[in-house]
Amino acid sequence: MAEEAVFDFIHMEAVSYVFQGGEKVSEDEAVSKLEHMGFATGYRLVERLTRESGRYKDELDIMKYICKDLWVTVYKKQIDNLRTNHQGVYVLHDNRFRLLTHMANGKQYLQYAPRYLAFTCGLVRGCLANLGVTCVVTAEVTHLPACKFQIQVQRG
Amino acid sequence: MAEEAVFDFIHMEAVSYVFQGGEKVSEDEAVSKLEHMGFATGYRLVERLTRESGRYKDELDIMKYICKDLWVTVYKKQIDNLRTNHQGVYVLHDNRFRLLTHMANGKQYLQYAPRYLAFTCGLVRGCLANLGVTCVVTAEVTHLPACKFQIQVQRG
Repeated sequence: MAEEAVFDFIHMEAVSYVFQGGEKVSEDEAVSKLEHMGFATGYRLVERLTRESGRYKDELDIMKYICKDLWVTVYKKQIDNLRTNHQGVYVLHDNRFRLLTHMANGKQYLQYAPRYLAFTCGLVRGCLANLGVTCVVTAEVTHLPACKFQIQVQRG
Repeated sequence: MAEEAVFDFIHMEAVSYVFQGGEKVSEDEAVSKLEHMGFATGYRLVERLTRESGRYKDELDIMKYICKDLWVTVYKKQIDNLRTNHQGVYVLHDNRFRLLTHMANGKQYLQYAPRYLAFTCGLVRGCLANLGVTCVVTAEVTHLPACKFQIQVQRG
């Protein structure tokens, strides 16, 4: 329990620093900074995590790794549902995303949700980049604390 | 192993963001920002961690808690040595401080060490503040990756 809290709190501080602590930046710039922090973290993390595991069979196999091993490592639960159109689009549903659980449930807070998803979008993109998959990752919240991450693989 | 890496990497990103990613800030300002991020993290963390544990006997008892439970939770090892002058000064020696282990060993890198200690100084100060102890925390590196944290309790 406690170990996870360390990550939650430092993440929360990073969000709050990027949005308020530093010089004035626009919402888009701040989201982009967090996304980059996530990317660098994900890129390094997957290097550490996959050092001893084998190669992945294919793209879907890599996505399953993200949904299971990676998610458990970082968020202590698996992704609840993975869907794909088999043409390079993958949608990962998390019914209770940890970095959103501290937010009060109410429509008026939905506007702030992207701040708490940007790091993770970057994290997923960084992991995938290290595993050889170039992609764009976006996130969407329908009602807190559920959300979905969409991965759009960029072909050669 | 892997869980710790998440914290290490997000911490590293926070350091790099504060020093390079944002607007131009002085070295002192950046260290101070990280210290504040650590403070907020420590303050919240200790609230979570001590929710079920009892009260502490005295100040020394609180310091032992920091050296053992807190350090294990965040850094996966205990503080190697705790000294006190019994007048409100406590010195915590960590012979292999985790956030310094990624740094190459060499005198020329010593100048950057404070960047990797500021968050933790704040973390300790935040934990202690939540437990009712007001203090100043400073850190010093003699040779990497060993370091010591000095806690100076502020009386009444």
